[in-house]
Amino acid sequence: MPLLHEDRLFPIEGRARDIARALYADIRDLPIISPHGHTDPRWYAENAPFPDPAQLFVTPDHYVFRMLCSQGVALADLGVPRVDGGATETDGRKIWRLFAQNYHLFRATPSRLWLDYSFQNVFGIDRPLNAGSADWYFDHIAECLAKPEFRPRALFERFNIEAIATTEAATDDLRWHRMIRDSGWTGRVITAYRPDGVIDPEMEGFAENVALMGEQTGEDTTTWAGYLNAHRARRAYFKEFGATSSDHGHPSARTEDLPQADAAALFTKALRGECTPDEADAFRAHMLTEMARMSLDDGLVLQIHPGSRRNHSDPVMAMHGRDKGFDIPGRTDYVAALRPLLNAVGMRTDLSVILFTLDETSYARELAPLAGVYPCLKLGPAWWFHDSAEGMRRFREMTTETAGFYNTVGFNDDTRAFCSIPARHDVARRVDCAYLATLVATGRLSENDAPELAYDLAYGLAKRAYKL
Amino acid sequence: MPLLHEDRLFPIEGRARDIARALYADIRDLPIISPHGHTDPRWYAENAPFPDPAQLFVTPDHYVFRMLCSQGVALADLGVPRVDGGATETDGRKIWRLFAQNYHLFRATPSRLWLDYSFQNVFGIDRPLNAGSADWYFDHIAECLAKPEFRPRALFERFNIEAIATTEAATDDLRWHRMIRDSGWTGRVITAYRPDGVIDPEMEGFAENVALMGEQTGEDTTTWAGYLNAHRARRAYFKEFGATSSDHGHPSARTEDLPQADAAALFTKALRGECTPDEADAFRAHMLTEMARMSLDDGLVLQIHPGSRRNHSDPVMAMHGRDKGFDIPGRTDYVAALRPLLNAVGMRTDLSVILFTLDETSYARELAPLAGVYPCLKLGPAWWFHDSAEGMRRFREMTTETAGFYNTVGFNDDTRAFCSIPARHDVARRVDCAYLATLVATGRLSENDAPELAYDLAYGLAKRAYKL
Amino acid sequence: MPLLHEDRLFPIEGRARDIARALYADIRDLPIISPHGHTDPRWYAENAPFPDPAQLFVTPDHYVFRMLCSQGVALADLGVPRVDGGATETDGRKIWRLFAQNYHLFRATPSRLWLDYSFQNVFGIDRPLNAGSADWYFDHIAECLAKPEFRPRALFERFNIEAIATTEAATDDLRWHRMIRDSGWTGRVITAYRPDGVIDPEMEGFAENVALMGEQTGEDTTTWAGYLNAHRARRAYFKEFGATSSDHGHPSARTEDLPQADAAALFTKALRGECTPDEADAFRAHMLTEMARMSLDDGLVLQIHPGSRRNHSDPVMAMHGRDKGFDIPGRTDYVAALRPLLNAVGMRTDLSVILFTLDETSYARELAPLAGVYPCLKLGPAWWFHDSAEGMRRFREMTTETAGFYNTVGFNDDTRAFCSIPARHDVARRVDCAYLATLVATGRLSENDAPELAYDLAYGLAKRAYKL
Repeated sequence: MPLLHEDRLFPIEGRARDIARALYADIRDLPIISPHGHTDPRWYAENAPFPDPAQLFVTPDHYVFRMLCSQGVALADLGVPRVDGGATETDGRKIWRLFAQNYHLFRATPSRLWLDYSFQNVFGIDRPLNAGSADWYFDHIAECLAKPEFRPRALFERFNIEAIATTEAATDDLRWHRMIRDSGWTGRVITAYRPDGVIDPEMEGFAENVALMGEQTGEDTTTWAGYLNAHRARRAYFKEFGATSSDHGHPSARTEDLPQADAAALFTKALRGECTPDEADAFRAHMLTEMARMSLDDGLVLQIHPGSRRNHSDPVMAMHGRDKGFDIPGRTDYVAALRPLLNAVGMRTDLSVILFTLDETSYARELAPLAGVYPCLKLGPAWWFHDSAEGMRRFREMTTETAGFYNTVGFNDDTRAFCSIPARHDVARRVDCAYLATLVATGRLSENDAPELAYDLAYGLAKRAYKL
Repeated sequence: MPLLHEDRLFPIEGRARDIARALYADIRDLPIISPHGHTDPRWYAENAPFPDPAQLFVTPDHYVFRMLCSQGVALADLGVPRVDGGATETDGRKIWRLFAQNYHLFRATPSRLWLDYSFQNVFGIDRPLNAGSADWYFDHIAECLAKPEFRPRALFERFNIEAIATTEAATDDLRWHRMIRDSGWTGRVITAYRPDGVIDPEMEGFAENVALMGEQTGEDTTTWAGYLNAHRARRAYFKEFGATSSDHGHPSARTEDLPQADAAALFTKALRGECTPDEADAFRAHMLTEMARMSLDDGLVLQIHPGSRRNHSDPVMAMHGRDKGFDIPGRTDYVAALRPLLNAVGMRTDLSVILFTLDETSYARELAPLAGVYPCLKLGPAWWFHDSAEGMRRFREMTTETAGFYNTVGFNDDTRAFCSIPARHDVARRVDCAYLATLVATGRLSENDAPELAYDLAYGLAKRAYKL
Repeated sequence: MPLLHEDRLFPIEGRARDIARALYADIRDLPIISPHGHTDPRWYAENAPFPDPAQLFVTPDHYVFRMLCSQGVALADLGVPRVDGGATETDGRKIWRLFAQNYHLFRATPSRLWLDYSFQNVFGIDRPLNAGSADWYFDHIAECLAKPEFRPRALFERFNIEAIATTEAATDDLRWHRMIRDSGWTGRVITAYRPDGVIDPEMEGFAENVALMGEQTGEDTTTWAGYLNAHRARRAYFKEFGATSSDHGHPSARTEDLPQADAAALFTKALRGECTPDEADAFRAHMLTEMARMSLDDGLVLQIHPGSRRNHSDPVMAMHGRDKGFDIPGRTDYVAALRPLLNAVGMRTDLSVILFTLDETSYARELAPLAGVYPCLKLGPAWWFHDSAEGMRRFREMTTETAGFYNTVGFNDDTRAFCSIPARHDVARRVDCAYLATLVATGRLSENDAPELAYDLAYGLAKRAYKL
């Protein structure tokens, strides 16, 4: 028996399901455009086999280990490294068994859909994962991973990825991207400019990062003008490796458009580590507007990913460090927050700012009204905790009526879990076809217009919005 | 092929659809009660032909031009006037073509449903609008508009409008309403009292407006007592022209019930232009309670329309002025905000305060619990960006269980787009019938009770709530 | 004709409905676990007949009298007592008639479902309630109530209640619980520890309550250490009467973990009535963390019920007192608010903190992400205004994808309306089966896994989470 339902995520009612099926049949095999994500470029550069199943599916996936943690499994028992280098589980089979025993926890979660998709479609498995099948699963997947057709480049091609963006810090040397380019392999792996480490005065190592950026660019980054020039140079460098976008993960969506002298003064304070929290926030906020102005020159699409309260647990931060599943969304305001940036550049038709949110209350109230009028704004897809069937449905239901489809940008998988990429795009394609089918069946969309929209939501919008 | 699906907005499943159809069949032809809107009384007074199709459908409709603007069309190219009188497009056909070329942007939006309804049912069109049909459309509609049966009064009668309210500033002379009355035409067009211009100290021309109100009423509006008396007199004047309601479009739902001496002191500061922003806010807040007290005397229904952050873009405000699609909703609190007014008059059963919101998070959390207990409170329908199929569905799903149906007031079209009036009421009637049908089909409403509710939601509640 | 639809609350579409029916058939007759509620232990202790129908269904039910009040019925006319002892209606029949005349107000509300369930299944009625049937209803129910099989213990057994928790103040002498225990009756009625009256410095009688707690325990509650010991002693006393949980109804979810000296200083100020509002809030906030630490010792499950703005109407509070339907939900933050407690004890796997909310915007944004990672956290069911079909559906749709099912705790009826207990559990069971059926029909849940989940949602999770 297959792990996956053939008609999963489609409407239940027969006629609507038929429409969804027909729309999906036409777009299911379109190439994948993955314009925003966190896969490791080293994979594509070295093309080494993936390590064991636990390292592929459990230990690095925050969706997976956070759920296990919530039911009392210690992160260390899943192999999650400790900051102090203390011992954590290293036996992949033991980690896998713990995961398998608790697989029922994932019932009705997106992780379950992604994992079952990978098990069935990538590894050809047709029996359910549980305590009884754990060892069989482990052996089977380990055996596959040893074969050439499961190496990163082979999977990349099998997944039909037309283009994928990774995300690198502004000061990254992009060595893996260079190695990919030099290898002659034709897979399109591009970078994206993520300057949080040189923009956020509260980030550890901020001053050192800025200094490094100075060395990399030959600019005097102790001055405001030199600092901005260094950004310009690094952006140009990233563009050499295919970058078409920058990305900004601020705590809030606050923007500012300060007088240059004030911004320069804040920058000096920031370098000295003398910013108050509000000044640090103002500096980050102002830098979004500077980034937007640079985008007017170099064409990079500007992505804003705000609203995560990072590292919520002090003990977990102390023991395991950042990005360990303890980032919790919070209320996020856009209307007042974006106003300075929008007053500065919002009416430009040659700028593209893509907004994401972890606060769904902003969809209908703020984001759709903003994107539905400002030429520079587009809405990113349902993100992170909302990258799910219900999350995507709510996104469409709450944004389409005010912003339409053409102020959205298709799907982002935003993942570091390589095998989940086709699974996630498949979920998005199914959910969007289901949504379109429902619109057709309720007379809100013409049957003639639906196929074009299905194509655009699956492929065309992402390609155009990210200039790929 | 018709532009509109016969069963649009009904449930997809067969039995539920049948119930919805039956409910709708009984109420679809009920007269329209339009108790809150912004059509121009001059239309009914002069009964002149509407100008060209672009002036009817594009240039004055903020839903339409904001979407076009969001995709890079300049407002000036749509004929939207400039504050400085600078040139904007005046060729209706050119504007219409631009609109037609971009008609795909409106897929699955309420504007599309309203427009197609008008094209099909008002202008008898059965081919889709697009770049290819643009000129044909323009000519056909222009030809119709020249005929007597497309003049405002003829359409009013054809639309089966039993009563419609326009909205006028407190200082309006109501000349067009007088002209309608004097004409002997029997169409019921009434006004509504909108005193924002004489209540909001931050509104341009506040002091001049208050002075004008003094002249109009013979009251000394430099004093607090005279100012209140002037309101009473203007309300009485509006009642002569049919007004049954006042309307208040404040930035927030804040109310205050200040000691009279404090209110008087604020008023004096306001006249002098010396209010701080918070004092201006407090004055507006207090005036809602004064208006409620006047309603106890004169019976006007008090409508509160809070929560829009107006004129979000400084460049657009500078170039095109107010009401150009750049009003963005924001979070709105009701629980603490309304408390002073409710402590003053909330338990009165002879007062009616109708609350609207642009913040859907308040439906289930605040508005339904408030309206579900205070005798004076009722909930206005899904408003503005939420005047849509999904918006109306969410309104019912999030308010009915706590506030029931009888603390709601039927539909408001709130529009200045005349041809959209029957289209909007039709959407509301269909969505409400769909909701009722779903309740019946899931055993949450008796089949016997549903027709009465369908009638009340389409007609009875609006008539009673607005005393029409 | 029965009052209730056989398939109520199930999906409309045939296959999904069939799945829901099958799931429900297997769990509909499971015993009721009612781990959080407000029934009066005196009922079970004395086992006296319930008074007349109005006293059973109208006068004490805030859902019922608030809706009637919203449409202009005076609380006094429903027999709701006055603080000053002034006259209110005492004629049950008159109250019942008023209720029956207005029964249409409850269309599509949960109250209507609960009432009709009681009428049909508890009192065997098959005609609808309205003005015409009011007297018949009153006589029929009154006649039933006089019979032994309608006494509290008989109904308890007929309702198939396996265990029910009442809620008592920390200083309650638990006399009725003692009387139940001493009676030899085997019905499992347990208490729960509700210390708001000795934790909230702003509660009337705080200092007296703390002094009383000192007398009850022999501790010196004028000292911080003695006060904490008194809590420990009272918790132990409550455990003798079956308590497995404490419950905390704070205005917000704020927690603090203050240095003990600071907490002690606040306590001293609190006893003297000298706390500022913020200090009172900080003290309540700190006490949640103290309660959590005590739970680590004694195993009580800690329930947090935040976010109600109590006694919103001053005139109603003055005339009728607390708990009269004028408690209104407000925005509630959890992410920052819970951090101090979670930093102190959040990673403990031997602690259980159950979170409730009246602010549905927190489900997907805050509560599911928090409960989906912290081992100590679980999510309570949809609460109060959200204890409804739509409310439960939204709860599942917005929490399951991130927190799964196993970080939730089954259903709480949270009621003082005895006859509504089986009705409410039936609604929850049906809505959960409908949700599971929808997941199965859309391929998001395996058909094999659904029955186990239906069992757990109806019975198993509540039993385990509350250690019953």
